[in-house]
Amino acid sequence: MPHVYVVGVGMTKIGRHFDKGLVELAAEAYEKAVEDAGIEPAGIVVSNMMASSLQGQDSLGALIASSLGLRYRPALHVEAACGSGGAAVYTAYSLVASGLLPSVMVIGVEKMTDYPTAIVTEALAQAADADYEVFYGASFAALNALMMRYYMERYGVSRDEMSEWPVMMHENALKNPYAQLHKKITRRMVAESQPVADPIRLLDSSPIGDGAAAVILASGEEARKTHWGATVEVTGLGLAVDTVELSNREALDRIPALERAAEQAYQMAGVTPREIDVAEIHDAFTITAVLSIEALGLAGRGEAAKLLARGRFHPGDRPTLNPSGGLKARGHPVGATGVYQVAEITMQLRGDYPGVRVDNPRHGLASNIGGDGSTTTVVILSRRM
Amino acid sequence: MPHVYVVGVGMTKIGRHFDKGLVELAAEAYEKAVEDAGIEPAGIVVSNMMASSLQGQDSLGALIASSLGLRYRPALHVEAACGSGGAAVYTAYSLVASGLLPSVMVIGVEKMTDYPTAIVTEALAQAADADYEVFYGASFAALNALMMRYYMERYGVSRDEMSEWPVMMHENALKNPYAQLHKKITRRMVAESQPVADPIRLLDSSPIGDGAAAVILASGEEARKTHWGATVEVTGLGLAVDTVELSNREALDRIPALERAAEQAYQMAGVTPREIDVAEIHDAFTITAVLSIEALGLAGRGEAAKLLARGRFHPGDRPTLNPSGGLKARGHPVGATGVYQVAEITMQLRGDYPGVRVDNPRHGLASNIGGDGSTTTVVILSRRM
Repeated sequence: MPHVYVVGVGMTKIGRHFDKGLVELAAEAYEKAVEDAGIEPAGIVVSNMMASSLQGQDSLGALIASSLGLRYRPALHVEAACGSGGAAVYTAYSLVASGLLPSVMVIGVEKMTDYPTAIVTEALAQAADADYEVFYGASFAALNALMMRYYMERYGVSRDEMSEWPVMMHENALKNPYAQLHKKITRRMVAESQPVADPIRLLDSSPIGDGAAAVILASGEEARKTHWGATVEVTGLGLAVDTVELSNREALDRIPALERAAEQAYQMAGVTPREIDVAEIHDAFTITAVLSIEALGLAGRGEAAKLLARGRFHPGDRPTLNPSGGLKARGHPVGATGVYQVAEITMQLRGDYPGVRVDNPRHGLASNIGGDGSTTTVVILSRRM
Repeated sequence: MPHVYVVGVGMTKIGRHFDKGLVELAAEAYEKAVEDAGIEPAGIVVSNMMASSLQGQDSLGALIASSLGLRYRPALHVEAACGSGGAAVYTAYSLVASGLLPSVMVIGVEKMTDYPTAIVTEALAQAADADYEVFYGASFAALNALMMRYYMERYGVSRDEMSEWPVMMHENALKNPYAQLHKKITRRMVAESQPVADPIRLLDSSPIGDGAAAVILASGEEARKTHWGATVEVTGLGLAVDTVELSNREALDRIPALERAAEQAYQMAGVTPREIDVAEIHDAFTITAVLSIEALGLAGRGEAAKLLARGRFHPGDRPTLNPSGGLKARGHPVGATGVYQVAEITMQLRGDYPGVRVDNPRHGLASNIGGDGSTTTVVILSRRM
């Protein structure tokens, strides 16, 4: 396999950007990443879920590339619901590794605010199965609530234990200048927050926000022309899909596809879960984080929430999980999330991450999920210099 | 560059499939392609434009892969409006050429019937610029009408000369068992058909239909395990984007991005336009075909319509254009169209195409367009055995 490096990253703060549309958000991340790398990309892959539903706009590859001055270059748009970012990184890797393009920027962008909540909820439900779930009235939160209740019952996990995840996320996000939420919370506040779909509470849920993140992938030869050179390499990649509808899965208390994506990525990178120093995982809801930790082999089955409640995976521990604050508090501009994760892990490995920093990490991991486990991706990055 | 082959193809008839949804259409094309190749693909790339708008369904990669028994394999969804198919083939090529996957199936699928025409027209308009075109009331046909009028005025092309394209397409489609329209028409019928957006008439326009097409790309090593082996190679690829809004283009009487995509593909394949024996080009409207012929270097500027009217590019001539009947008469299930084209050119090169056949072709070309020229792709296939 040829070597592919992450040579530049850029992010916008996540939040309500009343004054910015998709193109303006993408442009901010683009310019930061180009400045960080010192090169313009030969092509782009846009990661976005909701523009078709919310902005009535298709052809985002062409729209964003041409708006950024990349007219006539190759541009693609990849969609896998909330897992679009990881899928786009997988695509960009292949464009570089194949020799088709010397460098590719992945731009994840999503504009979710300025719309009534019911419209956004309906657009998010397109990540579930239209015929077998949404038609029957299931919201996306309701489907995740089934998984959370089943997990808690099966493994005897308490509400209080589950609540540690959002508490840690809000704590970590306090130091992240790009995070949407900067507010300390307690386990009690989580348990007493508004029910969304029982047992999921408001503070178990990631917020709605606008944002864009960009990463530039480059071949070894092209990387030598950049500021960061061959500092951070993409060493492992995994992508595995499952049924969109929950009822046909192998299990409700696991994310089986993510287990496969993780296997692929660990094998390609030649590392084990124990060697991961820092990870950004997908926590659309608290249960998504808990099941991801187990699918990634970082905890045994039924153990993740209990370990978290006892202080495991917090800053200072290895691996540290979601030093950014995760989807819960950094924010979750859906199509951009997987790209934020890769940008954050890249900065952790370079040592210039502006938030909670992991000391001298060698291997980092990003895992992104579309729907409640239908598209799953794992990216492993390793420090090379 | 590693060698990548097309080792299997499958298509559904295009039309009104009242009894089939996206998954059933995709399954029919999938099964035919797997039977044709003799292997199952390691991963899939789904090409689709409108499921988000019409079926309320995202995550098509996961949905279709898991429904086809490809659970846990990698699957992506690529969107570039009506150019999704070409963009998906470009993506699949890179997944194979990078070494990430030994084989990848591209499945293009679109379900456009069973909805009111106004809804479909609105969904198609998502290929135009939401902020700078659609907001002001421009339909997709209206934007193409601007191009057609300008071209006819500038180069002194008559209505009668323009009408030869749809006449030839309907003639060619008569022999294509997969075509949506099987009806001979005359130039006079085109000129007298209902105006859609002057000067575009109904018979200048591709129909609305459902359909799915699949092609399997494989590495040299994997190709040896298939029925067709290394018969048809992907020798050239080009992908170039332009502004989505027409008003910011370099020219109205050309498709500048397609000129670049063609340059890339010819250069990679090491062939000239004169060496192309057969091509399937994008004729969403008559003007799209005419401008494509010129962008691909098959005719000089302003000459394509006049040459067509004099019998050039018809069956028996080299290159023969759109022996399938093209978007105009084979049909245009938008996200699937670019995949139909590659499947058709593959069969022409193998010598088993069931419609109008080109005698002993060596190089074939497929060109696909998103919007009115915002995403453009060119795929060159060459016979190797």
